Parts: sequence; C-alpha cells; structure tokens
Amino acid sequence: MTSANVADRIVCAVMAGGSGTRFWPLSRKHEPKQLLQFFGDKTLLRVTVDRIAPLCPPERRLCVTAGHLRDAVQAVLPELGPGQILAEPAPRNTAPCMAIAAIVAEQIAPDAILVLLPSDHFVADAAAFREAILRAAAFADRGHVVTLGIQPTTPETGYGYIQLGDALGEGGYAVERFVEKPSLETAEQYLIGGKHLWNAGVFVIRADKALASLDAHVPEIGRTLAELRGGKHRFDTEAFEALLRVTFPNCPNVSIDYGVAEHETDIRCVRLDAGWSDVGTWHSLLGLRPEGENNFVHGPVLAVDSHHSVLISKGPFLAAVGLRDMAVVATDDATLVLPLDRSQDVRLVVAELSKLGRADLL
Amino acid sequence: MTSANVADRIVCAVMAGGSGTRFWPLSRKHEPKQLLQFFGDKTLLRVTVDRIAPLCPPERRLCVTAGHLRDAVQAVLPELGPGQILAEPAPRNTAPCMAIAAIVAEQIAPDAILVLLPSDHFVADAAAFREAILRAAAFADRGHVVTLGIQPTTPETGYGYIQLGDALGEGGYAVERFVEKPSLETAEQYLIGGKHLWNAGVFVIRADKALASLDAHVPEIGRTLAELRGGKHRFDTEAFEALLRVTFPNCPNVSIDYGVAEHETDIRCVRLDAGWSDVGTWHSLLGLRPEGENNFVHGPVLAVDSHHSVLISKGPFLAAVGLRDMAVVATDDATLVLPLDRSQDVRLVVAELSKLGRADLL
Repeated sequence: MTSANVADRIVCAVMAGGSGTRFWPLSRKHEPKQLLQFFGDKTLLRVTVDRIAPLCPPERRLCVTAGHLRDAVQAVLPELGPGQILAEPAPRNTAPCMAIAAIVAEQIAPDAILVLLPSDHFVADAAAFREAILRAAAFADRGHVVTLGIQPTTPETGYGYIQLGDALGEGGYAVERFVEKPSLETAEQYLIGGKHLWNAGVFVIRADKALASLDAHVPEIGRTLAELRGGKHRFDTEAFEALLRVTFPNCPNVSIDYGVAEHETDIRCVRLDAGWSDVGTWHSLLGLRPEGENNFVHGPVLAVDSHHSVLISKGPFLAAVGLRDMAVVATDDATLVLPLDRSQDVRLVVAELSKLGRADLL
Repeated sequence: MTSANVADRIVCAVMAGGSGTRFWPLSRKHEPKQLLQFFGDKTLLRVTVDRIAPLCPPERRLCVTAGHLRDAVQAVLPELGPGQILAEPAPRNTAPCMAIAAIVAEQIAPDAILVLLPSDHFVADAAAFREAILRAAAFADRGHVVTLGIQPTTPETGYGYIQLGDALGEGGYAVERFVEKPSLETAEQYLIGGKHLWNAGVFVIRADKALASLDAHVPEIGRTLAELRGGKHRFDTEAFEALLRVTFPNCPNVSIDYGVAEHETDIRCVRLDAGWSDVGTWHSLLGLRPEGENNFVHGPVLAVDSHHSVLISKGPFLAAVGLRDMAVVATDDATLVLPLDRSQDVRLVVAELSKLGRADLL
C-alpha cells in the first residue's frame, strides 16, 4: 500500500496488436478490427481509450501494438507521445506485452497500477466499466491479480470462464479457477448456476506484481527483457525502443492467462454487468444493433424486407432484398456474403485467399 | 413468291433497344442486358447476331436500338455500316421498330423477308434456331406472319403463349390465338396439353407484308413514317437518319403482338426446341449454368459450400459461404443480394434508387 490515491496511479495499457481476420473483408492486415469503425465514426481503439480516459490522463496511457500498425495507432491516438506506443517487432501473445507495459508503467508512475485491456471490445455502459476498474484497482493495490468477469447472457462455448469463489464485498470475488471453452451443456449449466463469469481479458495488477509474477512463472521473459527493465533507458528514448526491437522477439509466446493467471493464487474477480461484447464475429454485431432496429447497418445500405442481418458497406451501394440472418459486407475490392450462423467460416475464405496468393486482399 | 432463294432474301433486324433493369446492378441505362457478358466474353447482342449470321451476311443485318446505345452497339457490331444501326430517338415499343426495319429491308433486298428478333435471349442450339428460322421464312414467303414457339419446360406464368392449331408439316402450325401471362393452373395445363408454346418474341414476315399489316391495323405508323417509306432517301444517308429522328417519336407506342399478331389471321408458328431462355431474371441464369456446376458463377468468385446460387462479380472479389438459392451480384459501385425466388424484386431497389435521386447508380 502506498500513500497516493489508487486512481492517481492507474496506467492503462491498451493491447492493440491483434491481426484478427474474422472481420474480413473489412479487417485487413493493415486495418485490423481495432481500427474499424463499427459504431459511428470512431474506431474501436479510440472508443476503448475514451472509455477509460477519465481514469488516466494522456501521460498515463500506453498502447502496445504491432510494428506495422504503429502509424495507424498514432493517428487514432494523437495524444500519445514518444514511447507511449510500444511497437512489438513480432507477436508474442499477451504475457510479454504485460511485461513491457509494466516496465514502462513503473517509469511513468511510482507504484503504478496497470490496467491491461483489449482494444477491440464493446461496452455499452462506460461508467459502469470505469467503476469496475476502480474496484479492481483497489484489489490490485493489495497485491492481487484482478480480472473483470462478465455476467453471461448466453451459453457461449467460445469464451473463457471464471469460476467464482467467495464474495468479498465491493463487487469482488475470489477466483476458484479458469475454464476455457466449455461444452454447450457445461456452458448452459454455468448460465443457470450463476457461479461462472466470462473472462473479459482485462487484467488489473500492480506493475511490480506483474513483473514479479512473470519472474516466478515465466522467468524467460524477465531474463530476455532484463536490460529494458534495468531502468538505464527511459521508455521515451530511442535507445529504449531500439533495445525493445532487438530483445522482444526473444520472449516466449505466452498468454497472461496461461503464464500468470493459472499459476497465481488469490486472484480476484470484479463482476461487470455493463453490456459487454467481445465483438468476435459478424454475428456478434447483430446483438449490438441500435434498439428497435431490425438489422445492423453501416454505410450506404438499402434494406428491403430484410431482417436480423448485418449489412455493411465501405464503398459500394449495397442493396439487400428479402434477407434473413445474413451477413453482407462490401468493400471496394472484396465482398463477403454468408449466413450469420456461418460467421466463423470467414476463416475458410481467408485461408483460401492466402493459398491463392491474394495478399492484396488480406 | 419470287424467283430468288428465300435464304438469300433474309434481312435480320435485331431489336436492341431494351433498357431492362431486372439485372441491376449489372445492367445500367448505358449498359442494358443485351450488352452484358453473361456467358464467356461475348455480349448477348453479339451472340444473338452470331447465331443468325450464317443466314444473313453483314449487309443484310440491321440493329434497332436506342439513341444513347448507338455507340455501344456499333462497338459490339463493327460489321454494320452507315444506316444499319437504326437509333430510335424515343422508345415506341416493337411495332414502329418493325416498320422502320421493314422500310430499310426493302431497300436492302428485293422481296426481303424480315426476321425480327430480340437481342438478349439465350439459345443453346444455334443450328436448330437457324433451321427454324429458315422454315419460318418459307411460310413467311407465302405471306404469313410467322412466330417461333418454344416448347415449354415449366409452367411459366410470366410468358406469352401461342395456342397451336393444325400441324401443317415442315414444323409449322396454324395459330389459334395468343394468350398473355396465364394463371399457374392454366400454365400447368398448357404444359401437359402440348398445344401451347412460349412466344419467343421472334417474328418472321415479308417486309412488304409487315408494312401492309401495319397499315391495316395501326395506320398511324404508316402515316407517320410515310416520307421515310417513300424511298426518296436511301437508308444509309444522313437525310434518312434526320427524317427518322424527327418523325419516329410521333409513332404510337404499340407492340407487334398487339398491333399485328392479334389482328392477323393465318398466322403460322414454327416450333423450336433448342434450349431457349429469355434470360429474364437472375433466377433464370441458374438454369443456364454449365452442366455439372452447382452455381452460376461469373468473375472473381470464391464459393465455399454454396449451392444453387448465382454469384457474379464485375470487379470486387466475391466470397460466398454457405449460400443456398441466392443471387449475389457485385460491381465496383453497387452490390445486390437477394434470394433467387425474390429475383423480381430487384425492381423495388431500382425504384428506390430512382426515388433517392441516385441516377449515378442506374
């Protein structure tokens, strides 16, 4: 425990390195999901940062992204100065990302509390989200790894679940264990049982605790990043960046869940009921259509007698007649049409394009 | 009857004035259906002329089209010289079109036998088509109005039917009457009865008979075009063209069926069984897919687990996953998606675009 107010020590690190292909043809290598504007004219990344902004002024914001996305991220987040956009030279999953965010957070704020969050999720109630983060920060300040747990609304088999232990007050719970992608039967039991929440992929943890936990469970990361961590180079220097570029690729490819959460005891979970979606597939967008609307529509679209469909155009005029439960996505160089219950199969298209050597479309 | 061989007096006049919107977004005002390449790299117009070409050398070919399509038609039919492309300054349906074709045909060939045919139909067996035309020409030479009748294969309610009378040999029949768009029940009876053929919209008639018949039943046309018909101006002169431009719009709007066929007695019909389609809707294309193919595909299309669908792109890469009985048509500036059984409803889209003032897309 330190003297400064918890809220004043929050450093948020938005993880924006994803290269998701599930939103092809809208998402591309150089324009992944977090850079798309699904809702209004703001990218998911910008909306994510705006959501948490009241908790951390610009100087306490970081964004970890891929090298080829750095310029695009800078354009979306012009408030970030030198060193606040951390470009991973190679993707190494979230544990190394947590490590570099923690290293920088310690330089930015004494006794920093790190909020690591995905850049491409949807949260309807931003105030409730911030409230949950503040509660989580209080638990984190006491040395816990804290996750946000979302009240399930459907028996999702594609999500990770958090099995809750005792209620600890302040919306917090002990965590019994993490469960990955349960069967439908199990997911249905979870939904009824009320003891399991969706893992939102948000972690709140003291920066020093993050590094210590990584040292304990994935020591290779700490060893690889030892010089960066030594404090010799300020995070906003070219030397720091050069060192990051050279050392980072040597980190093992490990997730926070696997490298930290599954090994830690005394993990806490803060419940969040704020209209959350991981915006994981075209289908998920349907659930995010404005109230009273039949379809999720974006761009120049004419829907005639069409229902329960996702109709998006980023260019061509799109006319849909008599559609039910379909996704149609049109861009200037590619169009995708599939039933929403086949949303996952966009990967088949991407795989085929890759096989055909159509990098221009990926 | 004249001395010259019937085959040497055939003048074909392809009617290419249609401004069909049923193939939007592929068909546009300046690129209607007859100028589209549905099959291979030839337009329907070119395929139509090639089909009948062995019966009439270039100098005995005419094309009647709309003013704004003249250049495009000339590009498709470079063999046509001055005056062989007749540009209607305003659409007046097919009877005035027959009149000007007959006027020019008389100048081109003594005792001309006029073959008037739509420019945008599909015929699988071109040789059988030409054989039917020759048979029809023989009947026409004896002074009859002759139509081609297609053996029905489905109980179509959108077509006109020809009710056959006595068989006259040489594949010819007397015609009892014409029936427009019957009920489904009636169409089913026709299909079983064997006495009704589809009206293919092809007319074969001596040029002098055509003009005489029009004089008898729609005298306003002959009066309006009297100076053109007088023979003072050769069809390939600017004077003829200028006169056509001034007088043609004064013709009444009448079809050959209504203005001639329904009034004539002793009409003949020649049966044609050659794999015919009027290519009337997106749905009709499905029946014209290559044998053994699941879908009708044209352009850069990737079909994954998709069946019985019409998948066309003229530009963007089109990926279709899990589709059944759908039409997807992508162009650079517009995309249409509808179930094939809603093919007729493309008109709703076109009407809406018109209302929205989107002439750029029409």
